[in-house]
Amino acid sequence: MTAIDDALRANEHYAQTFTAGNLAAPPRRRLAVLACMDARLAIHRMLALEEGDAHVIRNAGGIVDEDALRSLLISHHVLGTRELMLIHHTDCGMLGLREEELRSKLIQESGAAAVAPARFYGFQELESNLREQMAKLRSHPWVPDAVTMRAFIFDVRTGRLREVAAAAE
Amino acid sequence: MTAIDDALRANEHYAQTFTAGNLAAPPRRRLAVLACMDARLAIHRMLALEEGDAHVIRNAGGIVDEDALRSLLISHHVLGTRELMLIHHTDCGMLGLREEELRSKLIQESGAAAVAPARFYGFQELESNLREQMAKLRSHPWVPDAVTMRAFIFDVRTGRLREVAAAAE
Repeated sequence: MTAIDDALRANEHYAQTFTAGNLAAPPRRRLAVLACMDARLAIHRMLALEEGDAHVIRNAGGIVDEDALRSLLISHHVLGTRELMLIHHTDCGMLGLREEELRSKLIQESGAAAVAPARFYGFQELESNLREQMAKLRSHPWVPDAVTMRAFIFDVRTGRLREVAAAAE
Repeated sequence: MTAIDDALRANEHYAQTFTAGNLAAPPRRRLAVLACMDARLAIHRMLALEEGDAHVIRNAGGIVDEDALRSLLISHHVLGTRELMLIHHTDCGMLGLREEELRSKLIQESGAAAVAPARFYGFQELESNLREQMAKLRSHPWVPDAVTMRAFIFDVRTGRLREVAAAAE
């Protein structure tokens, strides 16, 4: 029995008790969340979100790279979200990641170089990195000024979100 | 009261009853999920995942772009996951997205062109697009052969996952 088989058995039960089959694509709460992929972040439970409430965009570190930007532009302009929560967390695997070491290891183990990904986006400090992601969004001409944007650090020990001021350091 | 304020009030309750504070970063089930950001997909509930079980990577469409690849490489090589579920869904907002129309609208509304994102990754057909994402991963030299990879379409009407064969069409 693999982890995927387990998940599929659970989905069978989910489908049998599913009552959210009449929802449209635009998120009901007009909310988007951009968060780290970390396994300890169960976003729906953490924020009490139901099916249909919010877009959830996740990647390693909760970074505003080209793809998160792509997803957020779709979210705001095509599907009408008007608020964004950016969620990083304590004990993140990207904190202190040695990018060149990882790249060398991958090249050595696979015997091949690769064009993509060009960067891994490891970072050295949690709050300044979070502010940098906010600034990248705020400076992009296609991110609507009308979108409310707030940034948080999730404490994996306590389950609590702490807001990080948006002001530049 | 904004959607973010609502979510923060819910997080206060979550933190008060939080019991998962002793988990390490590597996912317990050694599972990663790459899924669309769509609001109707509540991944943890859909698959009965608990805090600590699995990485969850999400973007518009569940596309294997440079960033999803970055996140998956971190997941497999740095944090030890060994299975991957790729989850697209019916009624996806990226189905039939007219990329050039969207780009023109953004340039017109903002009065500015932008370098990124270079693509929006709209697609025309669900199953072939899903197979294309699988093929991009399988052909990348840094994605370990040992990772079990399976692809699914989530039916937003029934809550049920349907597996899509990995074979090329």
